[in-house]
Amino acid sequence: MSRTRVGIINVTGYAGVELARLLHQHPEVELASVTGRSAAGQELMQVFPHLSNLGLTIEAKLGKVDLVFSAMPHKDSAQEVIPLVEAGLKVVDISADFRLKDAEEYPRWYGFAHPAPQLLSQAVYGLPELHRAQLASAQLVANPGCYPTGAILALAPAVKAAIIAPEIIVDSKSGVSGAGRSLSLQTHFSEVNEDVSAYALGGHRHLPEIAQELKLLGAKSPSITFVPHLIPMTRGILTTAYAPLLPGKLASGKKGEEELRQLYLDFYQDEPFVRVTEAPPHTKHTWGNNMCLVYPTIDQRTERLVVISCIDNLVKGAAGQAIQNMNLMLGLAETTGLETLAVYP
Amino acid sequence: MSRTRVGIINVTGYAGVELARLLHQHPEVELASVTGRSAAGQELMQVFPHLSNLGLTIEAKLGKVDLVFSAMPHKDSAQEVIPLVEAGLKVVDISADFRLKDAEEYPRWYGFAHPAPQLLSQAVYGLPELHRAQLASAQLVANPGCYPTGAILALAPAVKAAIIAPEIIVDSKSGVSGAGRSLSLQTHFSEVNEDVSAYALGGHRHLPEIAQELKLLGAKSPSITFVPHLIPMTRGILTTAYAPLLPGKLASGKKGEEELRQLYLDFYQDEPFVRVTEAPPHTKHTWGNNMCLVYPTIDQRTERLVVISCIDNLVKGAAGQAIQNMNLMLGLAETTGLETLAVYP
Amino acid sequence: MSRTRVGIINVTGYAGVELARLLHQHPEVELASVTGRSAAGQELMQVFPHLSNLGLTIEAKLGKVDLVFSAMPHKDSAQEVIPLVEAGLKVVDISADFRLKDAEEYPRWYGFAHPAPQLLSQAVYGLPELHRAQLASAQLVANPGCYPTGAILALAPAVKAAIIAPEIIVDSKSGVSGAGRSLSLQTHFSEVNEDVSAYALGGHRHLPEIAQELKLLGAKSPSITFVPHLIPMTRGILTTAYAPLLPGKLASGKKGEEELRQLYLDFYQDEPFVRVTEAPPHTKHTWGNNMCLVYPTIDQRTERLVVISCIDNLVKGAAGQAIQNMNLMLGLAETTGLETLAVYP
Amino acid sequence: MSRTRVGIINVTGYAGVELARLLHQHPEVELASVTGRSAAGQELMQVFPHLSNLGLTIEAKLGKVDLVFSAMPHKDSAQEVIPLVEAGLKVVDISADFRLKDAEEYPRWYGFAHPAPQLLSQAVYGLPELHRAQLASAQLVANPGCYPTGAILALAPAVKAAIIAPEIIVDSKSGVSGAGRSLSLQTHFSEVNEDVSAYALGGHRHLPEIAQELKLLGAKSPSITFVPHLIPMTRGILTTAYAPLLPGKLASGKKGEEELRQLYLDFYQDEPFVRVTEAPPHTKHTWGNNMCLVYPTIDQRTERLVVISCIDNLVKGAAGQAIQNMNLMLGLAETTGLETLAVYP
Repeated sequence: MSRTRVGIINVTGYAGVELARLLHQHPEVELASVTGRSAAGQELMQVFPHLSNLGLTIEAKLGKVDLVFSAMPHKDSAQEVIPLVEAGLKVVDISADFRLKDAEEYPRWYGFAHPAPQLLSQAVYGLPELHRAQLASAQLVANPGCYPTGAILALAPAVKAAIIAPEIIVDSKSGVSGAGRSLSLQTHFSEVNEDVSAYALGGHRHLPEIAQELKLLGAKSPSITFVPHLIPMTRGILTTAYAPLLPGKLASGKKGEEELRQLYLDFYQDEPFVRVTEAPPHTKHTWGNNMCLVYPTIDQRTERLVVISCIDNLVKGAAGQAIQNMNLMLGLAETTGLETLAVYP
Repeated sequence: MSRTRVGIINVTGYAGVELARLLHQHPEVELASVTGRSAAGQELMQVFPHLSNLGLTIEAKLGKVDLVFSAMPHKDSAQEVIPLVEAGLKVVDISADFRLKDAEEYPRWYGFAHPAPQLLSQAVYGLPELHRAQLASAQLVANPGCYPTGAILALAPAVKAAIIAPEIIVDSKSGVSGAGRSLSLQTHFSEVNEDVSAYALGGHRHLPEIAQELKLLGAKSPSITFVPHLIPMTRGILTTAYAPLLPGKLASGKKGEEELRQLYLDFYQDEPFVRVTEAPPHTKHTWGNNMCLVYPTIDQRTERLVVISCIDNLVKGAAGQAIQNMNLMLGLAETTGLETLAVYP
Repeated sequence: MSRTRVGIINVTGYAGVELARLLHQHPEVELASVTGRSAAGQELMQVFPHLSNLGLTIEAKLGKVDLVFSAMPHKDSAQEVIPLVEAGLKVVDISADFRLKDAEEYPRWYGFAHPAPQLLSQAVYGLPELHRAQLASAQLVANPGCYPTGAILALAPAVKAAIIAPEIIVDSKSGVSGAGRSLSLQTHFSEVNEDVSAYALGGHRHLPEIAQELKLLGAKSPSITFVPHLIPMTRGILTTAYAPLLPGKLASGKKGEEELRQLYLDFYQDEPFVRVTEAPPHTKHTWGNNMCLVYPTIDQRTERLVVISCIDNLVKGAAGQAIQNMNLMLGLAETTGLETLAVYP
Repeated sequence: MSRTRVGIINVTGYAGVELARLLHQHPEVELASVTGRSAAGQELMQVFPHLSNLGLTIEAKLGKVDLVFSAMPHKDSAQEVIPLVEAGLKVVDISADFRLKDAEEYPRWYGFAHPAPQLLSQAVYGLPELHRAQLASAQLVANPGCYPTGAILALAPAVKAAIIAPEIIVDSKSGVSGAGRSLSLQTHFSEVNEDVSAYALGGHRHLPEIAQELKLLGAKSPSITFVPHLIPMTRGILTTAYAPLLPGKLASGKKGEEELRQLYLDFYQDEPFVRVTEAPPHTKHTWGNNMCLVYPTIDQRTERLVVISCIDNLVKGAAGQAIQNMNLMLGLAETTGLETLAVYP
């Protein structure tokens, strides 16, 4: 039986090259074609010496494949993806271009009018923990942003169970690879090493995604403040989410904590890539793999829910989740090719 | 004119050795005696080669001085400080032992009954921006904790002006030196490098300090959730504080932002060590010096105040602030010995 | 067919836990028993949350297995290993206790008289690139040190071809995980972050291993200076080796460089875990996998050989190489379970 | 008495901004004018928020000053410096443009014909430890490169005393700020964090400087291999230098080590910025200050000299040494403005 042929558009960013690494280890698909812009014509291994010889040359135009990952930047990605979808290919788009259901959000947050609003309803938001059933039959999957993945998985059980008021603070701490491989002073080693800073205080583009999904889970008019921070490490996002508990939903004291924990354990009981931890998790425990670790607790003094989540922003936050989605789309076991453990220490 | 003789109890922790570095550069006082426990008998420079030859040997018992810094751990520090205060010496206590006005907080947060509750009202909380007048005549100063320094300075103007509801989230990100020089797995390089984690989710000891001072500023029954995080850098604390704006206190839109900014500028207008910045600040911009950078803004979508503050946890968060307090206690110019700029990059 | 049962003595150090990670992914063996000292009685996953549920409890005493990895410290390891060898088990000893053929080196370098000198000739030095044939039939394998692995692989082709005088400088730069999981001030985050230092200038214990193997390759009375350095990263060793080229062995200029490169390519042509690179390699390109990257070049001005090698000290420098050795001992394909690519960036 | 007015050409690189930081603290000179290219017109403090308000705007053209620091890149720097020298100003050139005495080295190493070869003999190589007397009367000082500063100070006493054969290996490990503030993939955080690599294996431009100065100290036709490495930290260079000891120059064993140490102590006995250490030094012990730490030792097995030196590449390796030179040129005490201790940890 021949393996499904897959391709990567724009392999040369960090999401793209992480896809290549993970797909190389995938037993059921064949990475058959990769494209890049400035690097077109070079062998993949010359640009990325950590990849062993896949025999692939970076091409200007995608070869014949059955499923495509687009790792293009937003706006450009839609231009690549639209004709592929029309041609009947399956597509996982890593960019934001098909994540938001409301086309009017695109000019507001991304500064462009969406070129194919009719595809927005067709596209499935690729968070398997929430949309697994639809993903199995999806042709176009919008892979979630890195921050939304951590934030939504932290809050989903509580929102679904309606135990919190929708007054939500999401404070995220991200490694620098989340800012991509393009050069900038903000990602220059000497500037970001031994430093931490908040950014996008006027509103980060990942906010509407978080709001959209929490609303789908039942949050009424959620009021969400989301502040991302850049910290001096390469991989990982830790999200700390805060919200007031609604009175009477959980028992008081230790018993309430146990109920909360059970609620999370139940919600994620069959999830291969979410683990509810017994102690505050570390991003290091997800380094290089597709797990999301979630730790819910109660600040008893203030009756607030506090949830910590950890992911590797390039795996569960990008390439790993894309492959999880691909597995679902192709009818493969969801964990195929994603079984490796985190690399610690 | 002879310079005032000062001493350091327990010079061998990070706060103690930072005091030695800064006092060495202070033109008006003489570092005359330093003590240590396990290192007693060694020359200071042998233990800390970055210090040039101060001609000091680490002693088991403090020599004759006029003012003492105690850098002992909490509980032990009180034992050292009480007889010194009774003997009439001026003392700046870097530990938590005299920070809380309510003696009953000590068993609750620190696990011991306070040995000299009568001194708690006499002690002045050493945050010059709030208590400058009392510090000038203080005999015993309780130097604030590193997290409270950043959190209180972030929130003080807003609390004082009563523009926020007291539903406060304080999310702090600290470099590892804040955990001290004692060995632990949590501060072992390979464990904390490329990692971020939250800790003390059951309640951190710095919380009652923050609450105490915000109450003094006018916050009524504040409900504060404080979550500290450890990030892979040596120095620096960035605090992100969140609170709902009270309706009608600030104008809407850009005008409200300007009013907020002006309120902060006014509050800190004469402060030599607080700067209200025009852009989100970086801890790197305080590396090695005594500044606190504060950036207040409004999340317009949710009408929440968001304030970022940055300090070097070992300077404004410990040794530098202790010297600022000493300057006030000795009637010296407040900035004496603390003028060096941050070391960037 | 039942899988071979293997065990790990002292799973709680970094080499031990890395073995557990890699063995978990190995399709042909079953990790059946792990031991620890202070952690005995705890579930493996509680001590190391990055490991998924292997269903293993850390035991005080090893269970029934067919092959054992000892990750005990030197001297203690021999005590564990000797009875296992006598009982007929296959053993891969990660410690130094069976690496040196000359028993008299043990008191000199390790401070103890070897308890079983007769086993030293029986033990095979586990560098497959040099001793593959013997490893296939070995009962006791002495897994090489991390520094020797990088140094020997950098120099072996040149020594074997007798193109250099044996006046060798080995300057190595190691990540901090090489210093282990035991606490020390040298591995305390705030001490080693933003720092580099040389150590063991009086002679490092890995020197006799390097000398032993280079002599076996033909170096006559080699005069080797080896200086290790600690740099602020978790994983990786880069070794820079220097030696004078013997006159007349290689052509001059570019042609000599090509001859040198070809000599290295030929030497390592069938090696699955050594790659001769076209550009100076980065340790990052080996992060988490079993590759050794080697880059030989000539300093034309001085007619010296300069070779750079990179490994992950915990994989090719410890646990990965141990599994490579196990594969050979069990007659499995040498790369089994070691195919994952480096995690970049 | 009015203070000497000094200016900085190209303040916006790391050497330039470090000069601004240090000059701000200098009691005897006034930083009166700074220039930049792309940043011209902006306030200095807006580009570099760590600088307190110096009241300076970055200008396109230098204002009226008595002494100029040029922090321009090589080749461009000469164009700026030549007219200033002709106009009679004192100049400290941080670039390489006046370091090499032999004009023919410039096309060979830097790719341009020197525009003013007659100034090369007039320029003084600004390593005060070797050329102090000439610096006092110099009009044009060529500030040494960062690597040469560490390498020459490591080897000078041994070369001068003629105890080594001139078969020298210089293996240097540098923090990333040495690569400057210009963006490149090599200095992109995610690429260089958790990584070490060697570079410039074909010959680094700092080699001819090292050779020139060691020849002046008496080395006959030195054969020097110099390999620089980039390690994941911001500041600091550690250099490890190796050379064979000449027979009969030092006693054998411990006595020889003591003689060596005394030779270094004597050579540097009056130097304010070189300290011969008793243990292998750490770059951290020079973080932010102008010290060079030197540790000479003997590899007794091979009779080789091994010397470790540590500097902060932006201070003793650039801006601090430039101010040390300025102090000499202006007849000020050499240590003026450079007394601050290293910031540890």
